Amino acid sequence: MSTTTQRHHVVIVGAGHGGIEAAKALGNKAGTDVTIIDQNNYHTFQALLYQVATAGLEAGAIAHQVRGIVRRYPNVRFRLGRVASFDLDERHVALEGGDVIPYDSLIVAAGTVYGDLGVPGVREHAFVLKSLRESVTLRSHILHQFERAARHPDRIHDGRLTFVIAGAGPTGVEMAGALSELFAVAAKDYPELAAVEGGRPNVIVLEALDAVLAMYSEKTRRYTADVLRRRGVELRLSTRVSSVEAGHIELDDGTRIATQTLIWTAGVRAHPLAEALGVELMRAYRVPVTEQGHLVDRPEVFVIGDMSGMHAPNGEPYPMVAQVAMQQAKHAAKLLQARLAGADATAPFRYQDRGMMAIIGRGAGIAELSPRLGGMRFTGFIGWLAWLFIHLIYLPGHQNRISAFFSWVFNFFTFDRAARLQLDKPEDTARIRRTSGSMPR
Amino acid sequence: MSTTTQRHHVVIVGAGHGGIEAAKALGNKAGTDVTIIDQNNYHTFQALLYQVATAGLEAGAIAHQVRGIVRRYPNVRFRLGRVASFDLDERHVALEGGDVIPYDSLIVAAGTVYGDLGVPGVREHAFVLKSLRESVTLRSHILHQFERAARHPDRIHDGRLTFVIAGAGPTGVEMAGALSELFAVAAKDYPELAAVEGGRPNVIVLEALDAVLAMYSEKTRRYTADVLRRRGVELRLSTRVSSVEAGHIELDDGTRIATQTLIWTAGVRAHPLAEALGVELMRAYRVPVTEQGHLVDRPEVFVIGDMSGMHAPNGEPYPMVAQVAMQQAKHAAKLLQARLAGADATAPFRYQDRGMMAIIGRGAGIAELSPRLGGMRFTGFIGWLAWLFIHLIYLPGHQNRISAFFSWVFNFFTFDRAARLQLDKPEDTARIRRTSGSMPR
Repeated sequence: MSTTTQRHHVVIVGAGHGGIEAAKALGNKAGTDVTIIDQNNYHTFQALLYQVATAGLEAGAIAHQVRGIVRRYPNVRFRLGRVASFDLDERHVALEGGDVIPYDSLIVAAGTVYGDLGVPGVREHAFVLKSLRESVTLRSHILHQFERAARHPDRIHDGRLTFVIAGAGPTGVEMAGALSELFAVAAKDYPELAAVEGGRPNVIVLEALDAVLAMYSEKTRRYTADVLRRRGVELRLSTRVSSVEAGHIELDDGTRIATQTLIWTAGVRAHPLAEALGVELMRAYRVPVTEQGHLVDRPEVFVIGDMSGMHAPNGEPYPMVAQVAMQQAKHAAKLLQARLAGADATAPFRYQDRGMMAIIGRGAGIAELSPRLGGMRFTGFIGWLAWLFIHLIYLPGHQNRISAFFSWVFNFFTFDRAARLQLDKPEDTARIRRTSGSMPR
Repeated sequence: MSTTTQRHHVVIVGAGHGGIEAAKALGNKAGTDVTIIDQNNYHTFQALLYQVATAGLEAGAIAHQVRGIVRRYPNVRFRLGRVASFDLDERHVALEGGDVIPYDSLIVAAGTVYGDLGVPGVREHAFVLKSLRESVTLRSHILHQFERAARHPDRIHDGRLTFVIAGAGPTGVEMAGALSELFAVAAKDYPELAAVEGGRPNVIVLEALDAVLAMYSEKTRRYTADVLRRRGVELRLSTRVSSVEAGHIELDDGTRIATQTLIWTAGVRAHPLAEALGVELMRAYRVPVTEQGHLVDRPEVFVIGDMSGMHAPNGEPYPMVAQVAMQQAKHAAKLLQARLAGADATAPFRYQDRGMMAIIGRGAGIAELSPRLGGMRFTGFIGWLAWLFIHLIYLPGHQNRISAFFSWVFNFFTFDRAARLQLDKPEDTARIRRTSGSMPR
């Protein structure tokens, strides 16, 4: 498209927060054509996957078709496919299946996958929460454990009602809080289990560090741990998983926990496409780039978002959050536009940190504004409302906002969870996990 | 549960419209325990599956977890599982996996599956729309055909943009109308196809009879055919599929149509569990029963809904619609209660026909009230509004009603379809179809 018409062709790999933001920033810009590639036809709001997995939201509410987002920009095209390799010298991207897409500039924004941190059995048995498909499958699996328990209450000692989460970062903490609320719904759904000894489900969070949410302030960490414990979550800090087998896990202190469900939120690392860029990688396989955001010797190849090794002036790596990816996307688009206009395109990226937030459950949110914005802390109901408000704003698609809004209102007032559908059969769960690609090799 | 406490234990097989209605009717009734069994943990509003398949509604909006429906009745339990066989002499139901559930009374309401009418290749290649899983997979498949066409517009002669529907009953007609509306959205989503010769998708409806919607009046049939044709649907009446192969179908007049998508809505027949009842079956494998609704020699075994061979006093079989199943369910529950009370339980079932309705698409509904209710006919916008209203009332779950209502409003005013998510990968589609069980043997 571009090569014949002299228009500059930008290929974006990945339709996550970074890729979509880059496409929007380049949308309707003169002289530029854009192709955005993703293996799914939809953008996923990853931070809400845990709510799909715990039946708080419908799967459709947190995803939006890419073509629906980009169709207001006639110069942006979507391409469904998986990138197999890059040829940075010839400037093209090869897709699985053999198609080749040439580019003038490339923006790589393929995000992260999970690594197993060398723990045997994680690949075979653990669940991860990186894609919509995986969240639907995890929801089906969790609900199925309750059905299995209700069917044969005498067999619950096999850990079918014990849900273990490895990692007490935001995903682990939010998942634990949401699970404990699902348990309250299950207590009404499964009267068969009320009288059974050991019939109460439990959730255990394992964290290698000595605190939850390492990136938050001491006060917020303590609040979070308190709330989780009050809601029945068992926190085990300074604890690592040493091995995983079908039906149980072992901890580094020798403890053995019977469980059918290990949710792995540890070992986040850059997508394997980082290796395909042919440069030596940094910690967590992130790609080293200039402070403008492109490969050192290739100003036409930007790497943004969680894959990018860009770091703050103080040398600290940027957190793997949507805000960083979106700001880097806008920055890359601006530099590309400046170059096309023959202007100076050397401005370094500077992250405008606004802060961070999470919810631990019903009426219990945490938010910390960045020092730049006053450094205030909110916890409890205010933090929860702030979280809801911000997430409604950022959720793509009007219908999704309506759907999520009503689900949250409904969940809050009824203490219920309406999306308790076991869409995937148990016999499909293992295969979907295996082929999802969120924990490669 | 029942056998030890002298309570009467009713087992209901199937959580469709009939089964759920029976469970509700027996809910909180003195002296009765109920177990309702289904292979899914949710009830599906089958009449709306085509809207999920065409991205008009989220999957979650037309399904509701069975435990959520029955939990207000402490005497009703849900059991997830597939029935393997009945032992009518010993009075128990055996589930796949080996568990055995004894009953005092049995209500069989397993609905229908599709038969291939002896047409070779239908089992291997056709899509059917009987379960939520299948509707999600069909939606993914349809959207994928557009992606394939956009990627290689030079290869669209393989029929990737030709969608064929076999059968012009309500499912076929509604599906055709909904597809033609999805095409309008696709025209905006896929600018790549605008300039391509043959780049316009088309839908062909094949019907063996010489009219659409055989059960409706002549006027309504003509209106329906007119609307469909005006919206670009190709109707081929008095036409049968003679064989199906990968990539094309053949008609009985020798015509060959290249297509990647055959949606099979013909050959509806009772669920194979009908054969497990050990009686000689009627037309469409329906089970012969008394005019009370139970097996001739077994007053404790009711067969209701689409499986039931009950017929009107004039000898006509009842239509396979939710209203019949729900009324038969209430009738069976009433007779069971009367028996327990030692009262007369021989009242024959009489169907209170209210009429029938369908929508052909945006602003085009059809409704015919039964002669009992005045026999009025509505078409067009009024028919469409009436359909929306009735379906919102009958949809189970408050959240589902809100979700469907907003989706319909949104679809109407924006001409858009928000649920265009390809949740299943193409490589999974064939397997899901094969294992779905809606077209057995």
